[in-house]
Amino acid sequence: MNERDDEQNKLSGRRPPLNIALFEPEIAANTGAIGRTCVGLGVKLWLIEPLGFQIDNRKLKRAGLDYWPNLDWEIVPNWAGLKRRLAEANEIAESELRFFFFSKRAKRDYDEIEYRLGDVLVFGSESRGLPNSFIEDEERAVRIPIRPQIRSLNLSVSVAVAAFEARRQLRWKES
Amino acid sequence: MNERDDEQNKLSGRRPPLNIALFEPEIAANTGAIGRTCVGLGVKLWLIEPLGFQIDNRKLKRAGLDYWPNLDWEIVPNWAGLKRRLAEANEIAESELRFFFFSKRAKRDYDEIEYRLGDVLVFGSESRGLPNSFIEDEERAVRIPIRPQIRSLNLSVSVAVAAFEARRQLRWKES
Repeated sequence: MNERDDEQNKLSGRRPPLNIALFEPEIAANTGAIGRTCVGLGVKLWLIEPLGFQIDNRKLKRAGLDYWPNLDWEIVPNWAGLKRRLAEANEIAESELRFFFFSKRAKRDYDEIEYRLGDVLVFGSESRGLPNSFIEDEERAVRIPIRPQIRSLNLSVSVAVAAFEARRQLRWKES
Repeated sequence: MNERDDEQNKLSGRRPPLNIALFEPEIAANTGAIGRTCVGLGVKLWLIEPLGFQIDNRKLKRAGLDYWPNLDWEIVPNWAGLKRRLAEANEIAESELRFFFFSKRAKRDYDEIEYRLGDVLVFGSESRGLPNSFIEDEERAVRIPIRPQIRSLNLSVSVAVAAFEARRQLRWKES
């Protein structure tokens, strides 16, 4: 925990252009690949517990995730905790947070959204996706269109496609 | 070889909206993930030898790549072979083929390109990228912008980001 806190603190104080939140991710390699994309884009990664794996610095180092110290990331215990920390970190009220929930059961395409700086893109776990209650609001539930021949895209692919579309629209400075 | 030919033939005769070509890919898991994205988008995957792994149907089945039979894919022995087969498959002259070469050393951003149906997006190997000779034409060399804190995106992520941008522009029918 102390090591983790140290790393998180290094990058705090910066308001990220975009937030990626993984709801109960199960597979470490996917979270690793998503972390790499997030570093590449300068966006913040939130992990919502429970996780299907343990994060510890030694393991990350062994796995060759040498970019991990450059990742702005944070673990939260649950959905309420995510909202609280996002509001704190962005210095806004929880009601001002703008979430988009990615699901293949959604009706709006991800590229129809007009993204705004500070938006939070939420992705479900690899095996279960997001709970139905998250995608009831049709305005905020979005999908990445795919043919029915695959059940889903790889999670790290979905996150990248969505995050790069937000970047394409918003053109934040990559520093 | 026979098994492979059988699978390729099932999907022949269809002119794909987009072609993804992997130049000497090294890591089977990346090619697998890219195949999944290609099935999801209905685009064709070309693998340029030598490959860093063997493709055989039993291994694919064991790896849970149950979408692989729905993938339109083909192996070619080298660059000349790719051009020849692309021209044949699309019933056009080799000189009419339009290639884009993805490299972090390129100057044009991938989302500045106006993609056309039938374009060929070419990606280098995981460790070496594309040879310099491929990216000499600055019009056709494109990059996915990332911050310098990572050396590169994961190959399967790069392919997906580029292919979904082409789809966003071209809106081909996903059938």
